[in-house]
Amino acid sequence: MVTSRWTTAPAPPQAVSARRRGAVLERAILDAALEQLSTVGWNGLTMEGVAAGAQTGKAAVYRRWSSKEDLVADALQAGLPRFEKAPDVGTVREDLLALCRQARDAMFSRPGFALRSVIHECDPVQVERFHGVIFEGVVEPTTKLIGEIVTRGIERGEVRSDAANGYVLDAIPAMMMYRSKISGSEWSDREIEEMIDGLMLPLLLSRDA
Amino acid sequence: MVTSRWTTAPAPPQAVSARRRGAVLERAILDAALEQLSTVGWNGLTMEGVAAGAQTGKAAVYRRWSSKEDLVADALQAGLPRFEKAPDVGTVREDLLALCRQARDAMFSRPGFALRSVIHECDPVQVERFHGVIFEGVVEPTTKLIGEIVTRGIERGEVRSDAANGYVLDAIPAMMMYRSKISGSEWSDREIEEMIDGLMLPLLLSRDA
Repeated sequence: MVTSRWTTAPAPPQAVSARRRGAVLERAILDAALEQLSTVGWNGLTMEGVAAGAQTGKAAVYRRWSSKEDLVADALQAGLPRFEKAPDVGTVREDLLALCRQARDAMFSRPGFALRSVIHECDPVQVERFHGVIFEGVVEPTTKLIGEIVTRGIERGEVRSDAANGYVLDAIPAMMMYRSKISGSEWSDREIEEMIDGLMLPLLLSRDA
Repeated sequence: MVTSRWTTAPAPPQAVSARRRGAVLERAILDAALEQLSTVGWNGLTMEGVAAGAQTGKAAVYRRWSSKEDLVADALQAGLPRFEKAPDVGTVREDLLALCRQARDAMFSRPGFALRSVIHECDPVQVERFHGVIFEGVVEPTTKLIGEIVTRGIERGEVRSDAANGYVLDAIPAMMMYRSKISGSEWSDREIEEMIDGLMLPLLLSRDA
């Protein structure tokens, strides 16, 4: 299992002749897997294609990962950005705007495209394999951060006291997935503001405020 | 282009030996296409499989539809239920509950599974081919009906006057897609009630009510 963090920037040009080993080769393979996922998608990804992208042989890939599923799970795990702290600017509006911009940037990063290809193309049995990566890596942290923002708003008296339920906390990720899928939205800053002002604030703000 | 309506019940057993022609054979092929989509999905669907399911030959399918895309577009068009009238029970809560139950039943019907396999498995270029079916057949009618319910609520003074914006009207379809995809929700009556009471009513109800 690869647990090291690495950035989503393209890997530096490598001297093909230099023999890469261990962590360097592993990173090149994981990087190539994300690249394949975000371009040809889950269905198009092959171990051969990943090996070619990493400028190595198929055997080097299979030596580390016995299946496409295992490789992709590790590639997502290693590549997805981690949000560990909710923005805390002082108002629920500004905090949600900042968080949505971060989420949008992650969605449209290479690991974000890769993750969505897995979510959208895999059947329910295959998705099960990625449940941990998707749930523990993306869904739960996002819900937790939105929950922190909402809870701080409640403590300030800005947000109504019964707002922190699962449906409210799912509203932003649900909207972002729905519109990107159905109408191809790329969630410009303006669209994020419209969602927060037209949907989230009327839903959240205290009626006494 | 097939425009006739037909139910989603399984086709009655047919005497294989009887030669079917015209509308009857056409319906059997469209029916078999929905069956394939809802079981093996967009990626698994083949013209051969559809022909086998309809107990006919591949040539009979290709005579009517020159591509998988054309066949699937017609099958969805013919099979998807049409919602033409919003429930009008007298309160926004009851109207939304009734509409969500209808939408849930449609989602988990055979044409609903078929449609979702197309939405989820197709890449953006392929989805473009189904844009008309998805948008004009499902997305726009749903948004329109939710809009009617919200507008009637505004006229009654039950719903706040500025609630009928695109983000609010997208919230229910977004939640239903998100939770069915991410957590496998099948939207029980209880879950629908929780969404309406925990998300939509706080969002919609007038602050003076």
